Amino acid sequence: MNDKPLIGLTLGDPAGIGPEIIVKALSDRTAYEVSKPVVYGDRCVLERSLSDLNAAIDLNEIPSPSRGRFQVGTIDFIATSILSEPVPYGEISAEGGRAGLGYLDQATDAALTEAVDGVATAPLNKESLRAARAPYIDHTAALKAKAALREPMTLFLVRALRIFFLTRHISFRQIPDAITQEGILKAAPLCNLYLRQLGIQNPYLAIAALNPHGGEQGMFGDDEMDVIGPAVKAAREQGMNVAGPVPADSVFHQTAEGKYDGVLSLYHDQGHIAAKTLDFHGTVSLTMGLRFLRTSVDHGTAFDIAGKGIAGERGMVGAIKAAGRYSLSVKANMHLEQ
Amino acid sequence: MNDKPLIGLTLGDPAGIGPEIIVKALSDRTAYEVSKPVVYGDRCVLERSLSDLNAAIDLNEIPSPSRGRFQVGTIDFIATSILSEPVPYGEISAEGGRAGLGYLDQATDAALTEAVDGVATAPLNKESLRAARAPYIDHTAALKAKAALREPMTLFLVRALRIFFLTRHISFRQIPDAITQEGILKAAPLCNLYLRQLGIQNPYLAIAALNPHGGEQGMFGDDEMDVIGPAVKAAREQGMNVAGPVPADSVFHQTAEGKYDGVLSLYHDQGHIAAKTLDFHGTVSLTMGLRFLRTSVDHGTAFDIAGKGIAGERGMVGAIKAAGRYSLSVKANMHLEQ
Repeated sequence: MNDKPLIGLTLGDPAGIGPEIIVKALSDRTAYEVSKPVVYGDRCVLERSLSDLNAAIDLNEIPSPSRGRFQVGTIDFIATSILSEPVPYGEISAEGGRAGLGYLDQATDAALTEAVDGVATAPLNKESLRAARAPYIDHTAALKAKAALREPMTLFLVRALRIFFLTRHISFRQIPDAITQEGILKAAPLCNLYLRQLGIQNPYLAIAALNPHGGEQGMFGDDEMDVIGPAVKAAREQGMNVAGPVPADSVFHQTAEGKYDGVLSLYHDQGHIAAKTLDFHGTVSLTMGLRFLRTSVDHGTAFDIAGKGIAGERGMVGAIKAAGRYSLSVKANMHLEQ
Repeated sequence: MNDKPLIGLTLGDPAGIGPEIIVKALSDRTAYEVSKPVVYGDRCVLERSLSDLNAAIDLNEIPSPSRGRFQVGTIDFIATSILSEPVPYGEISAEGGRAGLGYLDQATDAALTEAVDGVATAPLNKESLRAARAPYIDHTAALKAKAALREPMTLFLVRALRIFFLTRHISFRQIPDAITQEGILKAAPLCNLYLRQLGIQNPYLAIAALNPHGGEQGMFGDDEMDVIGPAVKAAREQGMNVAGPVPADSVFHQTAEGKYDGVLSLYHDQGHIAAKTLDFHGTVSLTMGLRFLRTSVDHGTAFDIAGKGIAGERGMVGAIKAAGRYSLSVKANMHLEQ
């Protein structure tokens, strides 16, 4: 195995739970087992979280990521020098938005110059980004603008289950017509490529069905016969190792058991219900298609509990572990063709 | 705690895996821990399964359920005397359909006369029922005709999660318009009643949302604002302890953690994905609204593996346990008002 990868961690919006979950995650030996984590953030923000949590941790400011100590008990960080004092917890502010985006910006630059091998991010707040008149409304937009190599795609990772999404933030009524052969035939090769980037040879991808029992030969809907089935057939004819349409109440279980390497879910809740019911706090999001691997927690800034010391860090630990586990493979396989 | 309830078990279609999973389930001490199981079926069918499985189990034919020994190592059974020799495995046949329905019929009669306290069923085969020109196409239709006290409703039980369904076997495109205030206001009091029948005082019911993130104030769909939200409000005004619409990727996790006592899911896959991803083989189905509790496995006759000795009995054990755990409570609370 290669040496552990250097992972840049961003604090996220400092008014949210980001700094707290980063500090907690770095108090856990697990984070160091598969990665060398380096925080991008402001000293004052980190100091406030250490003080809030009464954590006996050494803040080690370093000039470049490779200079860290990478030991539990030390937080190695690159001082981003954006805020001179922390913004109040739980409040939307332009300063918070600007700072959160700034941490991301510096970590992204580090990844683009290969000073780090991957990035794991804590949450940003959309309202604060808007208050800051930021050019991007969220992580994905910012990362796409600076670092996209191809069409970025979100991959959910929960235990052995890898879930892609064909559609996401549209209404339920819009879903059926948004599922097209063209869309599936564009998404499936990307899923295939991204699974190979994670190190899986000749991945076997399942495509979920839309209707109950996969429609049962048209008894409960024609989408499988008219759209999804033909798309799967065409993908196979193009040489892809694809199964489906697989009834949605079986496909996630079967994938978690190892029958498939990944699932293309057709809509937001289809994949989200599976992941979040299986392990709510352990669902990690991977952004594929960038020039490096970015992982993140799948929750928001949780302004309502920011600074209270009660935020759970399991998702952040998962994001750091996933970045540690996969970032070198993504880097090595970034230029694979579809 | 009361004495253990007497549970009638049906073999299901003898050409399927029903007899095998019943025999396997009754070789497991668990089945006897919370119930006194009595099989309704033909001796020749049980003997074939015992021989297939090379099981050293004593077949104890009894004249009435209370006369059983109720010990691992013995299968107490009521001889239904329908088949004089077993039908071949894996084949659709009128004989198989007729026998499966006959077992159910006798167990239902036993429950209606209180000779047993509840019924746990192995699967029937629709094609065989059709071949037999049976008056019912499935369990639900047969039970509804003979034993319904109210509108029957399916409840999924998986770990601590209880899931009801507002709609089920309709196409995805039909779902949004099938979700009406009237429908929710008819279903919610039934869910409330059925949870009370299971012994839960003042149950707290969550109603799932339809759109991603519950629509985010209309950004991804209006159904929450126009239909589901107002229905929840009206249910509350009627005195019910109801929450919602709760985003579907949170509600099952939260219910499994104990925040709610049950979820009303809006469509088949919503609840099925949650249950089956969480524990595919451990999902048990309860039919509520009958004059007794009926539980069942949530899978079919699996003709393709019938007689091979490889069928898993976990679902059947779960169905027997659920019947044992809840049937007396359902009996005692059957006449509660909505």
